[in-house]
Amino acid sequence: MNYRMIKYTLGWILLFEAGFFVIPLITAMIYSEKAVWSFAVSMLICVAAAGLMFIGKPRSRVLYAREGFVIVSLSWIFLSLFGSIPFMLSGTIPSFIDALFETVSGFTTTGASILSSVEDIPRSMLMWRSFTHWVGGMGVLVFIMAFLPLSGGQNMHIMKAESPGPSVSKLVPRVRTTALILYVIYFVLTLLQFILLLCGGMSVFEALNTAFATAGTGGFGVKNDSIASFSPYIQIVVTVFMLLFSLNFSSYYLVLKGRFKDAFNSEIRTFMYIVVSAIVIITLNVRNMFSSLGEAVRHVAFTVASIISTTGFATVDFDLWPELSRMIILTVMCIGACAGSTGGGIKVSRLMILVKGMISEIKTLLHPRRVKKVSVDSRPVDNDVIRSVNSYMVFYILIFLVSMMIITLDGHDLVTNFSSVAATVNNIGPGLALAGPTQNFSFFSPLSKLVLIFDMLAGRLELFPMLLLFAPSTWRNK
Amino acid sequence: MNYRMIKYTLGWILLFEAGFFVIPLITAMIYSEKAVWSFAVSMLICVAAAGLMFIGKPRSRVLYAREGFVIVSLSWIFLSLFGSIPFMLSGTIPSFIDALFETVSGFTTTGASILSSVEDIPRSMLMWRSFTHWVGGMGVLVFIMAFLPLSGGQNMHIMKAESPGPSVSKLVPRVRTTALILYVIYFVLTLLQFILLLCGGMSVFEALNTAFATAGTGGFGVKNDSIASFSPYIQIVVTVFMLLFSLNFSSYYLVLKGRFKDAFNSEIRTFMYIVVSAIVIITLNVRNMFSSLGEAVRHVAFTVASIISTTGFATVDFDLWPELSRMIILTVMCIGACAGSTGGGIKVSRLMILVKGMISEIKTLLHPRRVKKVSVDSRPVDNDVIRSVNSYMVFYILIFLVSMMIITLDGHDLVTNFSSVAATVNNIGPGLALAGPTQNFSFFSPLSKLVLIFDMLAGRLELFPMLLLFAPSTWRNK
Repeated sequence: MNYRMIKYTLGWILLFEAGFFVIPLITAMIYSEKAVWSFAVSMLICVAAAGLMFIGKPRSRVLYAREGFVIVSLSWIFLSLFGSIPFMLSGTIPSFIDALFETVSGFTTTGASILSSVEDIPRSMLMWRSFTHWVGGMGVLVFIMAFLPLSGGQNMHIMKAESPGPSVSKLVPRVRTTALILYVIYFVLTLLQFILLLCGGMSVFEALNTAFATAGTGGFGVKNDSIASFSPYIQIVVTVFMLLFSLNFSSYYLVLKGRFKDAFNSEIRTFMYIVVSAIVIITLNVRNMFSSLGEAVRHVAFTVASIISTTGFATVDFDLWPELSRMIILTVMCIGACAGSTGGGIKVSRLMILVKGMISEIKTLLHPRRVKKVSVDSRPVDNDVIRSVNSYMVFYILIFLVSMMIITLDGHDLVTNFSSVAATVNNIGPGLALAGPTQNFSFFSPLSKLVLIFDMLAGRLELFPMLLLFAPSTWRNK
Repeated sequence: MNYRMIKYTLGWILLFEAGFFVIPLITAMIYSEKAVWSFAVSMLICVAAAGLMFIGKPRSRVLYAREGFVIVSLSWIFLSLFGSIPFMLSGTIPSFIDALFETVSGFTTTGASILSSVEDIPRSMLMWRSFTHWVGGMGVLVFIMAFLPLSGGQNMHIMKAESPGPSVSKLVPRVRTTALILYVIYFVLTLLQFILLLCGGMSVFEALNTAFATAGTGGFGVKNDSIASFSPYIQIVVTVFMLLFSLNFSSYYLVLKGRFKDAFNSEIRTFMYIVVSAIVIITLNVRNMFSSLGEAVRHVAFTVASIISTTGFATVDFDLWPELSRMIILTVMCIGACAGSTGGGIKVSRLMILVKGMISEIKTLLHPRRVKKVSVDSRPVDNDVIRSVNSYMVFYILIFLVSMMIITLDGHDLVTNFSSVAATVNNIGPGLALAGPTQNFSFFSPLSKLVLIFDMLAGRLELFPMLLLFAPSTWRNK
């Protein structure tokens, strides 16, 4: 294990975090909030800690697979730990575990909050919350890699571990250039939403926060009722952008290159099919709860987009909807967005591989001598990818069960427990019942909060890196 | 598709069913119940229908894989349809859908009932219910195969489709002899339990019913409170036999051959480990609900054995237990028994293959050039078995979701819906909430009952045969 290189990379992470604090710092200065010094002190702490990490330069810059996983997990843990300092320093969230929960929820783009009223806290703190979504959406390490040539050709390990989806495809031969292209697309889409929100009458502060939270598919809002009190225009813009940020970013690159047919791949088609079906069924189910069909469709489309993109914004309390709709929402929560987007969940392409694998198996039962193969977009899926997707599902179910077992000790009902784990491990935000969209997560015990913090990190990093951190063989020297 | 051969086999199934009716017929004669004629008429109907099926002898006796699956699915459907006739004729269960539900629940060894009071119906009807458990436990076709040389060497397809577990191993080279050995073990164990129950003061009627229902891991009882009002001795005997019938039957054969080490395989060890852990955790959780630790352990052990063996007997209302215990019960419901037993569920060996596959995958992430392999009991698991287990899990989740979506239309709560599907697809019987151990399934709509009937059959036949019945490619001629 190349410990020095891990320490060195973590140093860079903290330097970047110090830089991230500039955004809320400026916000605090504009609104002359006392929180200015909290961010200033946090910056100093990050810089000082980074200085300590840089002591003892790495002798070798070579990173193997296991170092890649460890770096990714530890980076996210460090980011969250240091990112929670301003919340504590300013007294906005005095409890350490609560501040950490909120920060992890931010960076992992979950959007589950322990705050009961976001309108009472300083604007700079809201800006920091939303900005963590934006940073976490595309992944910090990919961002750092785009600027720093950290290591030779081993960046792929880090990109694989940090990017959502069953397999990473490079757009261009160089990993660094690929990362840059993805970040430019991300930045441009965010800017576009920001402008459209401004046109709808949002203030610069509101528009910036909402754009950050939508882009990262996070879900932290600046109002207690999330997006409910904004105009239908704003709600529609947010709906559209939640869906846009759920698509594979490489498709935007393909569109720019004029390869429309490749861009509109089967994952995006399946995703659209799921979105439309869910909207139609839920609308039929809740039609009589709204005054007009148009209003029903608007709120249902917003909710479905919010849940499947794993953003977690709300315009209505979907916890009050009938059982069928709640059931579909729970299902869509677990499906999640497309691979290579900023969204969470199991990912549509994983489900496609699982279902296609099942169909192939059934055909083999009927015709035992048939050659087994699974293809997506007319390309055969590698056996390794199929195995990794299957293992992902097993680990997903396992983490779900163990988490539920532990938080069940708090004594809350099954729907609360199930939906809380679903809402955190899929990085959505609100669940159902006690953890519904009009509630918050503050009622959980510290132990349950720690479990949910783990689930948010595990969900964002696609389960394996966080698990490997606790596997003895990761640390064993051979 | 060899339609004539399918028809011919179904004829034999109905002839056997006519024979099965002898047991309740004798019961009705002993207790001079009016139901005698219901069984007599049902026998005649079966014989007449069998006669029709035998018209047009099969030209070829060759069965391919798809004929095997179709025969298994249709046999179980025919058995259930004709088996429900006495319930309707006697007026015990006048509604067709309810009578079918009860019969499918019997043959699939589920034990979920639509009856609100079993003490009010004729004893011959109770005997028929329990006897369907016993017939369904080991599988009817395996039984028929043990007596009839239906086809050349193609019996393996049928045995594979009807026997629980990821892979079928023949004890001896001939399939027919293997089936005979398994039935002898089944018969002897049932007899042993019958004698032990008689020693505990049960009447012959009660002991026979209870032994049939335990052997098939079914769960239909002869008292409204299931096993609660019987003595602790009886409860302990039932607990032990529920666990014995959850073990791989081939292990008993290995014990008889003196191969103790092979008999006590890793699946049985894992099963025991799960049982003991569940008992310990739940006992700690519900300790203060009972007057003594001994009483708590007795009831918890009974409940865990009843649930993991997928029998479904009850001595206490576990729906009143705290959330952690209910959560563990739901988990154990899905785990199920060992492969090659009469129990249902996902099966311990499948879970072992899934978890071992996941661990192998994690090791490969750390050391990418490692050779992937999964072994159980020091023997490598075939890649085909791993793929089939993975597909099983996907189909399991899919069937679970679709079933829940449909029964959710009835408007009941999530816990009722989830646990009802879990209780039927895993062939257990009671669920939680509205479908809890002191309740019954009569409150569901006819559509929901049909879905649960499908789930019981799919669960008993390990999902694939029932799915293939609806797959167009099964019926397409090539």
